[in-house]
Amino acid sequence: MSVPEHRRIFGEHLRELRRDRGWGSQESFAHHVGMDRTYVSGLERGRRNPTLDVIVKLARGLEVTPADLLAPITSTS
Amino acid sequence: MSVPEHRRIFGEHLRELRRDRGWGSQESFAHHVGMDRTYVSGLERGRRNPTLDVIVKLARGLEVTPADLLAPITSTS
Repeated sequence: MSVPEHRRIFGEHLRELRRDRGWGSQESFAHHVGMDRTYVSGLERGRRNPTLDVIVKLARGLEVTPADLLAPITSTS
Repeated sequence: MSVPEHRRIFGEHLRELRRDRGWGSQESFAHHVGMDRTYVSGLERGRRNPTLDVIVKLARGLEVTPADLLAPITSTS
């Protein structure tokens, strides 16, 4: 399955932020935000297409703003 | 149906950006981005929960970044 560029970028940034904010494992972060580890894994690999509600939930869990979470996605990517 | 605060804020901001960028009607903007007018209306009223793919599509249509589109949503809203 091909992954849209903006989702790949989102996923990489999510992984980076998760580690930077001290959540070393997908498992611990998933538990923190009340999601399944496989879902977090899918997000980080760009396989899942999160809704605004999910983006806001992830941002809260990372203590960043939703805009921060989307920051590396340019208009064309 | 109650509308989550972050979706209400997103919807108001989308409406504001649409008008600022010169799309006077939901109909013309919907046609521009290849969505249904009723869907754009639902987004602007906070009734719909757009995916990342949709957020990116809207941002492209408005010629702003996806982060710009989410900018007014704070971590707590």
